[in-house]
Amino acid sequence: MKDVQSSPDHRNIPIDHVGVKGIRYPITVLDKHEREQHTTASIDMFVDLPHQFRGTHMSRFIEILNEHRKEIHIRRLPMILRAIRESFDASSAHIELRFPYFIEKAAPVTATTGLMEYECCFRAASGQQGDDALVGVKVPVMTLCPCSKEISDYGAHNQRGVVSLDVRYRKMVWIEDLITTVEACASSPIYSLLKRPDEKFVTEASYNNPKFVEDVVRDVAVAMNANDRISWFRVSTENFESIHNHSAYACIEQQKEL
Amino acid sequence: MKDVQSSPDHRNIPIDHVGVKGIRYPITVLDKHEREQHTTASIDMFVDLPHQFRGTHMSRFIEILNEHRKEIHIRRLPMILRAIRESFDASSAHIELRFPYFIEKAAPVTATTGLMEYECCFRAASGQQGDDALVGVKVPVMTLCPCSKEISDYGAHNQRGVVSLDVRYRKMVWIEDLITTVEACASSPIYSLLKRPDEKFVTEASYNNPKFVEDVVRDVAVAMNANDRISWFRVSTENFESIHNHSAYACIEQQKEL
Amino acid sequence: MKDVQSSPDHRNIPIDHVGVKGIRYPITVLDKHEREQHTTASIDMFVDLPHQFRGTHMSRFIEILNEHRKEIHIRRLPMILRAIRESFDASSAHIELRFPYFIEKAAPVTATTGLMEYECCFRAASGQQGDDALVGVKVPVMTLCPCSKEISDYGAHNQRGVVSLDVRYRKMVWIEDLITTVEACASSPIYSLLKRPDEKFVTEASYNNPKFVEDVVRDVAVAMNANDRISWFRVSTENFESIHNHSAYACIEQQKEL
Amino acid sequence: MKDVQSSPDHRNIPIDHVGVKGIRYPITVLDKHEREQHTTASIDMFVDLPHQFRGTHMSRFIEILNEHRKEIHIRRLPMILRAIRESFDASSAHIELRFPYFIEKAAPVTATTGLMEYECCFRAASGQQGDDALVGVKVPVMTLCPCSKEISDYGAHNQRGVVSLDVRYRKMVWIEDLITTVEACASSPIYSLLKRPDEKFVTEASYNNPKFVEDVVRDVAVAMNANDRISWFRVSTENFESIHNHSAYACIEQQKEL
Repeated sequence: MKDVQSSPDHRNIPIDHVGVKGIRYPITVLDKHEREQHTTASIDMFVDLPHQFRGTHMSRFIEILNEHRKEIHIRRLPMILRAIRESFDASSAHIELRFPYFIEKAAPVTATTGLMEYECCFRAASGQQGDDALVGVKVPVMTLCPCSKEISDYGAHNQRGVVSLDVRYRKMVWIEDLITTVEACASSPIYSLLKRPDEKFVTEASYNNPKFVEDVVRDVAVAMNANDRISWFRVSTENFESIHNHSAYACIEQQKEL
Repeated sequence: MKDVQSSPDHRNIPIDHVGVKGIRYPITVLDKHEREQHTTASIDMFVDLPHQFRGTHMSRFIEILNEHRKEIHIRRLPMILRAIRESFDASSAHIELRFPYFIEKAAPVTATTGLMEYECCFRAASGQQGDDALVGVKVPVMTLCPCSKEISDYGAHNQRGVVSLDVRYRKMVWIEDLITTVEACASSPIYSLLKRPDEKFVTEASYNNPKFVEDVVRDVAVAMNANDRISWFRVSTENFESIHNHSAYACIEQQKEL
Repeated sequence: MKDVQSSPDHRNIPIDHVGVKGIRYPITVLDKHEREQHTTASIDMFVDLPHQFRGTHMSRFIEILNEHRKEIHIRRLPMILRAIRESFDASSAHIELRFPYFIEKAAPVTATTGLMEYECCFRAASGQQGDDALVGVKVPVMTLCPCSKEISDYGAHNQRGVVSLDVRYRKMVWIEDLITTVEACASSPIYSLLKRPDEKFVTEASYNNPKFVEDVVRDVAVAMNANDRISWFRVSTENFESIHNHSAYACIEQQKEL
Repeated sequence: MKDVQSSPDHRNIPIDHVGVKGIRYPITVLDKHEREQHTTASIDMFVDLPHQFRGTHMSRFIEILNEHRKEIHIRRLPMILRAIRESFDASSAHIELRFPYFIEKAAPVTATTGLMEYECCFRAASGQQGDDALVGVKVPVMTLCPCSKEISDYGAHNQRGVVSLDVRYRKMVWIEDLITTVEACASSPIYSLLKRPDEKFVTEASYNNPKFVEDVVRDVAVAMNANDRISWFRVSTENFESIHNHSAYACIEQQKEL
């Protein structure tokens, strides 16, 4: 059969990224406490396409995914990228995995445990300028408004917010450690399971620790700056305001000096 | 050209609903205060299909929509349903429109005004058992947890929730009135624009008015029961809990006695 | 500490459903070929609330989930429902799980295998009218338009569609079998991995097997009617039309005679 | 009342973007043929925050939006940005609006007209490095696979795809013109309303004009390179493959030489 994709192209335009998006796939992720964790991912895979070729053989991405099945974790990504570059004879390759990650978490007073879910992602690229890798976590937190507390005789509005932290690193970082750091920067962590003494604790602790979105991203930035493993980060906080129907938002991106 | 849709079908199975989904369309809705309001809708339109025909001429739905363009509001829906039934020679017809609706709302102390958006829907059907019409509103509100307030020395967790209210009616009801009723059943309405004195007011008012999801749906049910225009309702509340990563939820559906 | 939820309520309004929504949780599902499969679910759990009580102890749902962790599959759901009813002293209990499910599938010519993902759900309820259980699958398929093929000199528009099939059953049904049945009713199944001879096969096979959304739901209905295990079904097909920006849709719901 | 936001901050960390996200608002957009068009937008507005201040007065964004209400179109954005910078005494300001835009489109043979909806966006920024403005359109199209056509004895798989085109410009560009350009680069435009002769035409025209995602982005790139008004563009195509449950994707970004 004719290989249409390999036919020559005369438009003289290279393509930055070409590949497959939104592949759902079961994966196994390294777990700091349990060694590994089964979860399900949504995966994107791309290569570049030189100007002289018309198309890409998309099915090869799926073949490579199948070959590395059941061992798709972050330490494997460089091998998968190498396999992609070889299979496509490409000068660059990208892969991104987004997946729910589960952590057992003890309530602050009763120590009753429950599972919390965090949306995480790994992104890796390999190209002529070298390799790149990024880990991302989305951490739901509680934020209590400092202004509302200050101006009100009692009470203070609070809400769920989501802190998104993406990092590049010099030395491997655990998802668990990024999440713990972020949770310490909010008014309070949130939990799947709280008994009444825990709910009292979280209510009072957050009231004693009011934070704007601006405070949360700055405190995460301070922690990332103090962490030698991290070389770059972008942190944003989106608060689903309990007094409005829109979000409050703040974002800091920083390339750390060597 | 051959009319494939009109060819006979021998599987002997009538189809309940067949039609088009997710048509985006600009519409004009009656506005209690401004006479009318321009907005954009997502529209579904269906008929039934008797067992003896193979298919439906889907393009006719779009033609009918185009004919009634710029006058698509709830009073027009019976005419549109009649046009659908005639065009398709169908024994039943359904239409549903989901659209953002905007209401000017004054802040509680400074009376500064801002626009609030509410997701609303109209659903209408015409069939051999008669006609049916339903109006729905989704109202974002603030809820403050009675348990958290009771057990804590200070503060109380609160959050954004969404109250979904669908009603059938004996006499026409305004979207504006349904929304006002729902907002009065929460710990506090929410606003697009609040100055500091307003934020203080909302914070303290919600602290003085704690509500579980159970309280909100019951209070809306009491109001619907007391409203003679309403013949049926379903109300649900979903709280995006500020201390959890999941929602609290309650729902009541009631057919009122005549 | 005071138990606010258990305080009496005088509004005299029972609540149909009250509970928790959108809990993300790792689960294990029975797999026809591999014995079991790890995946991740989004879970809702509800009870009814009698008119005399103010609130529900939401944390108990999470405790019950934790107790049955790692053994959440459909045969366990009646036990979980019983545990919920006992814990809440409730007259009814509901649980719903939505999860991606993965099936190894061979390409039609080369037999190269790849993993396909299907969104599935289990819903179970236990109440004074007895127990109820429902299995649902969403099956992405290819549909090729019979009208377009008939009236055109060459080619025919085709597209991805999604067939949603929910069933109640007299005897246990496998997710795998529901999916196989649905795929046989479309113009062609779809695959994660196709080599060129497979792509040729799928292209020609779908061209030889044109189907309207009406045809797909009727053919599934015929198969469900012929399957003695099934007592009730609802099947819908939504086609993401390649010539329009809206969907074509058809739906049949049927309670089978005993 | 104390102004908590204006209190000093000692963490010494400036914030790149701080503001409000997801405000739903009715807007009026310039229309090439009808002069103007009413639609509804989702709006984000940000400023930077210098290191010495703790917080931002978020309500001012909404006040500025209210002041410019009913005249929010792209030519007004520089004035809105100036108002934001002045109100916040900020060195940079950003605004983004995403909205459905409707265009009357005639079917290719019968010339029957129907309304097509396109998701569009305006993004504008003003800072110390100067001003920036970007227009984006998402254009649903039909793509027919060249490989499938070549290797099959009859038929070819085709599907809906979405082409996302963002441009920066030297001279004002119409949304309508960007859309027309993109539609000419696909296998066929798509329509809201097609009668049978139109459906035959679109089927045959797309069969005669097969395009990979790679072809679509390259053809758009060629058109953007030839258009003197455009100074920068990013074009991507995502195909909702009719033979797979994942997407094929290609992307080109290009800064044009002066």
